[in-house]
Amino acid sequence: MTCNQSIEAKEELITRNLQEVLGAEEIGPILKERNLSIYWGTATTGRPHLAYIVPLLKIKDFIDAGCDVKILLADIHAFLDNLKATFDQISSRTKYYKLLILEILKMLNVTEGFTIVQGGTFQTHPDYSMDLLKLSSLTTQRDAAKAGTTVVKQVTNPLLSSLIYPCMQALDEEYLKVDAQFGGVDQRKIFTYAMKYLPKLGYKKRIHFMNEMIPGLDGDKMSSSSDKSKIDFLDSTKSIKQKISKCFCEEGNDTTGLLPFLKHIILPVLKIKNRPIIIARRDQTALEIETYEQLYENFMSKGLHPSDLKAFVADSIDFIVSPIRDELLKHEQLINEAYPNK
Amino acid sequence: MTCNQSIEAKEELITRNLQEVLGAEEIGPILKERNLSIYWGTATTGRPHLAYIVPLLKIKDFIDAGCDVKILLADIHAFLDNLKATFDQISSRTKYYKLLILEILKMLNVTEGFTIVQGGTFQTHPDYSMDLLKLSSLTTQRDAAKAGTTVVKQVTNPLLSSLIYPCMQALDEEYLKVDAQFGGVDQRKIFTYAMKYLPKLGYKKRIHFMNEMIPGLDGDKMSSSSDKSKIDFLDSTKSIKQKISKCFCEEGNDTTGLLPFLKHIILPVLKIKNRPIIIARRDQTALEIETYEQLYENFMSKGLHPSDLKAFVADSIDFIVSPIRDELLKHEQLINEAYPNK
Repeated sequence: MTCNQSIEAKEELITRNLQEVLGAEEIGPILKERNLSIYWGTATTGRPHLAYIVPLLKIKDFIDAGCDVKILLADIHAFLDNLKATFDQISSRTKYYKLLILEILKMLNVTEGFTIVQGGTFQTHPDYSMDLLKLSSLTTQRDAAKAGTTVVKQVTNPLLSSLIYPCMQALDEEYLKVDAQFGGVDQRKIFTYAMKYLPKLGYKKRIHFMNEMIPGLDGDKMSSSSDKSKIDFLDSTKSIKQKISKCFCEEGNDTTGLLPFLKHIILPVLKIKNRPIIIARRDQTALEIETYEQLYENFMSKGLHPSDLKAFVADSIDFIVSPIRDELLKHEQLINEAYPNK
Repeated sequence: MTCNQSIEAKEELITRNLQEVLGAEEIGPILKERNLSIYWGTATTGRPHLAYIVPLLKIKDFIDAGCDVKILLADIHAFLDNLKATFDQISSRTKYYKLLILEILKMLNVTEGFTIVQGGTFQTHPDYSMDLLKLSSLTTQRDAAKAGTTVVKQVTNPLLSSLIYPCMQALDEEYLKVDAQFGGVDQRKIFTYAMKYLPKLGYKKRIHFMNEMIPGLDGDKMSSSSDKSKIDFLDSTKSIKQKISKCFCEEGNDTTGLLPFLKHIILPVLKIKNRPIIIARRDQTALEIETYEQLYENFMSKGLHPSDLKAFVADSIDFIVSPIRDELLKHEQLINEAYPNK
């Protein structure tokens, strides 16, 4: 797919749909020489829910543009975030994340162009540790705290580790030998911290790609910590239907969480899967659309009833999830070890 | 010397002249089984001055009581404290510290019973680094800041490293496999931090020995950073005389810095060297004394004139320093590499 792409086409694919790019001017010169290498990190903590597809859709773009993508399973971060979890448990969670990421990518027709790396394989190496100590000698406590504001939980009596995390995330760019880091726009302050401080260690300032944050089905930012209205990759068809049916969705009211979910997950995936977007309607003919904008217009003009939309969303999610769920369920023991209380 | 000592005699020697001991109740039970192991750390930064003899005098007590003493040359701390110094320079400073410590100990008749360890040999080991990260996940920023209050320079916009140092100093106790840590009473908050937090990692709470802080010749706390009135081990006989002659010392006024200097350095060293304490007096017979108390009484009752006291102090310091200075001066190149601007 990448062989015949022009540099412009690659750059367009790499940056499309992003909310923000820092260092965009450096992309072209690198692409003239070689493909870009990009890292995306995820702490292997709670069980990922459906919104986890969003960054992986973007990663598909990177890979389709010939990029070499490194997916960092941040197991040390996970362990430190929650010392109540045992090493064995984190190890199981890391395996689960790896399995899940591979299955999602497979569902997105991505089977190569990426490497999965565990934090524990390099983040306690003596060189890394020495650099981390050096970085801590260059970083004021205030700058470290500012860097973590939108990522680290803000509590009244914060832990020292929350100041160290941004430093590690910056160093990871160097130790993973990448040109760029990708993340949600909630990572912005860590990214600008990295851009300011890596050069102080004599390392290159990296490019940063940021996805917009999408609201949850209930309208909030999705995170792995609460699963009230979130759809797990292990949810049954019935459970998916129930969760979707409970979502707020009012005729002609675009504050429903279903719309961004359709825009950022369902429609892009259906397109990749070459599945026509046909929405059955109770009292009319089925609605066939091509783009999110068409869907949005129909919904806002009340040509699409909330109950029909919900049925379409539930069916589509089940279509997306079912091959992944089938594969995950072959690893029941691993799931129980990773998340014993679910 | 240690073979025939009773446990009580050992314990008395270990704890004598200390300002404070934390965990004293654990000394006896260990001594019933084996000798105590104790660590003392020093960052290899500025050129040490004469007060450096004070902790080494106490270390002589430990060794005379059969203890296994580990002297930590904290080269990583030194490097991080001052990133302007190069690695090579810190390496030279570390060699200078080692040379100096060995010469001071030799002057105190100590040639065995201790090991010199460099921080860089273990403080970036993966196990150590992982423990440091764990500790940072257990320590609030407030506790880390409190721990460093009296040791770390207090500035308006402090560096992240100043929060990490207390954690490292705590971990060193475990990684040096000692029963106790020794330091000035200015280390007290780091010591209590270590006592509180090491058990949270599953490690033993250590015993802590604290020396009192002695004022400088000009009456302030001595530190390596300014050398106005401080006596360097490389100072010539003439320079020593000049510095001592400039010290504040008034007849019958005990606020002079010379008295604590006599009490904590000169008299103890002269005793170890079996040198009689005879103070020549201009208009009277020489004063021969046995104890600091006798000297103090004579000075306060004006039986000892400041100029006679100063002459005695200068002569004694020169007597103490000269064998050390002679040895150091054989390493002129090392000294120039370590401290090029002196």
